[in-house]
Amino acid sequence: MSELRQDPTTEEWVIIARERAKRPDNFAHHQPERELPAFSPSCPFCPGNEAMTPPSTLLYQRQGNSGWQIRAFANKYAALNPDSEATSKVVDGFFNAMPGIGAHEVIVETPFHNVSMASMTDTEVKGVLQAYQERYHALSKTSAAKFAIIFKNHGVGAGTSLEHSHSQIVVTPVVPRYVRMRHEVAMSYYDKTDRCLYSDLAEHELKIDKRVVMHTDKFVVLHPFASQRPFETWILPRKQQACFGDVSQEDLGGLAHVLRVVLLKFQRGLNNPDLNYVIDSAKIGDEKEHYYMWHIRIVPRLTEMAGFEIGSGMYINTAVPEETAQFMRNLDV
Amino acid sequence: MSELRQDPTTEEWVIIARERAKRPDNFAHHQPERELPAFSPSCPFCPGNEAMTPPSTLLYQRQGNSGWQIRAFANKYAALNPDSEATSKVVDGFFNAMPGIGAHEVIVETPFHNVSMASMTDTEVKGVLQAYQERYHALSKTSAAKFAIIFKNHGVGAGTSLEHSHSQIVVTPVVPRYVRMRHEVAMSYYDKTDRCLYSDLAEHELKIDKRVVMHTDKFVVLHPFASQRPFETWILPRKQQACFGDVSQEDLGGLAHVLRVVLLKFQRGLNNPDLNYVIDSAKIGDEKEHYYMWHIRIVPRLTEMAGFEIGSGMYINTAVPEETAQFMRNLDV
Repeated sequence: MSELRQDPTTEEWVIIARERAKRPDNFAHHQPERELPAFSPSCPFCPGNEAMTPPSTLLYQRQGNSGWQIRAFANKYAALNPDSEATSKVVDGFFNAMPGIGAHEVIVETPFHNVSMASMTDTEVKGVLQAYQERYHALSKTSAAKFAIIFKNHGVGAGTSLEHSHSQIVVTPVVPRYVRMRHEVAMSYYDKTDRCLYSDLAEHELKIDKRVVMHTDKFVVLHPFASQRPFETWILPRKQQACFGDVSQEDLGGLAHVLRVVLLKFQRGLNNPDLNYVIDSAKIGDEKEHYYMWHIRIVPRLTEMAGFEIGSGMYINTAVPEETAQFMRNLDV
Repeated sequence: MSELRQDPTTEEWVIIARERAKRPDNFAHHQPERELPAFSPSCPFCPGNEAMTPPSTLLYQRQGNSGWQIRAFANKYAALNPDSEATSKVVDGFFNAMPGIGAHEVIVETPFHNVSMASMTDTEVKGVLQAYQERYHALSKTSAAKFAIIFKNHGVGAGTSLEHSHSQIVVTPVVPRYVRMRHEVAMSYYDKTDRCLYSDLAEHELKIDKRVVMHTDKFVVLHPFASQRPFETWILPRKQQACFGDVSQEDLGGLAHVLRVVLLKFQRGLNNPDLNYVIDSAKIGDEKEHYYMWHIRIVPRLTEMAGFEIGSGMYINTAVPEETAQFMRNLDV
């Protein structure tokens, strides 16, 4: 018998299809890994090709080297662009629309075409997280900014066309409805209990210890009880903090280690699957609120969304979170 | 400059990325079509292989032939199964769960391994729609049934592993949160205006005539103003009717023609892309309500969802609905 499980952070139900569930190691990809060169002459993200992209908005120097380690710039095909105030208008007498105001930047994480986050040092990953924070602070201050999201697309199946390791930050002039829903659930929990839902969730998962992949004194990595997709992984801070921009330098170092190890577990355990991760924070203006907690959601692209998911917004998950968490926990990297 | 557009039926915003938008004909797939045999000995959906699936729950005879034309049965790896009342329980002292009660059936649309909906006659498509209705009525009567969705996965990229043309129906013991949200938006519109949001939308689109692909006196086919994905297509009835199960036999014939022509336009215009369609109805119990309208949403899988969409629930669409609608409208089939 399959099981319906409700995600306490969204109140969405998922179907955990035990009958059709595969063993965790059956999700590993079997294609051989492609060898990439350290430098690709046609890659716009490789050093020396900076003129192929818009001007730098952030440049971290490499230690003991004249070149850059991390570089940010506006996305050449930005979905949203900085401009004046975003004002909604009625179109065709029936619809609401507004100009595409906001920001959309790329953060190139390494000068090397063949280095991934999983193969970096902790210090290098910390540099990437610092770059995220710096661009978050700069871009979220614009008057139209309502919500900022930092994300990474790794692999063609995760929606990227450029293989040189990079992340993106998008700042929107609206709070997306799905995001608002998450916030409302957390707010309602806070109103009732005076506690942060995500803090309670993290501590509860640590106590139950069925779905925890790893933890430190500051962070918990878990496979959610109501995971929508196989191997969905969350990194939660243990102490309430609404905004990723407010993480201290010391904690950023600890987070870098945890993120690197988790990504390495994906690379080794599932043979480098396509994946996305997102850093989710409170909406802009609510950075100091106590109801929300920033966190990282990692979503490997191991299965295809089908008509049921598109039509209902409800997922059928063919993996059991307790089993996948155990697989990842036991994986030595 | 890109544009933010709001879907009046969900209040979700999408980004129409004009700068990175491709011309409609650039979305056509370029892989050569595979020739399928009319019969495949290993296919569980081919005639003669009925023992490879659970027993029939519906069987329509072929005209002038002893074999079947359409056949339904429980999904062998059903996500949900019929059983007693679904009761929610608390798991691990923190989470809500319930047993996987409901129904999940497969409807094989043709005895021929190589026939698709687009290559059927109108009469054959009407038979498929009748089978949908019949299984909807049978399965939605169970005590635990709260919501039913009919959908089709066409092609590997749309989540199907079996190439023999088939659809599925799933009946859930909960109303999915995304579905509830759609209903609430329609209900709120109805409360304010005493009119059905979808009827107003259909009539408005016909009047404006920028995004209409085709129409009859009973149905409108359009690309939504705030399409989340390129070539997203809706088929809307022009007269308010909450439930697909209530469509008259006469209207089902008209719908069959429209659906076939639209699917043929996809096959010819975009070279048979992977696609899903879903038939969305009011939740069970609200079949006679005036606030909602059943409709068909067709979602071709031309682009990959990435980290931004997964994290925010908001889509970046790289096609302009007015342009894709014009392309499909002008396509002779």
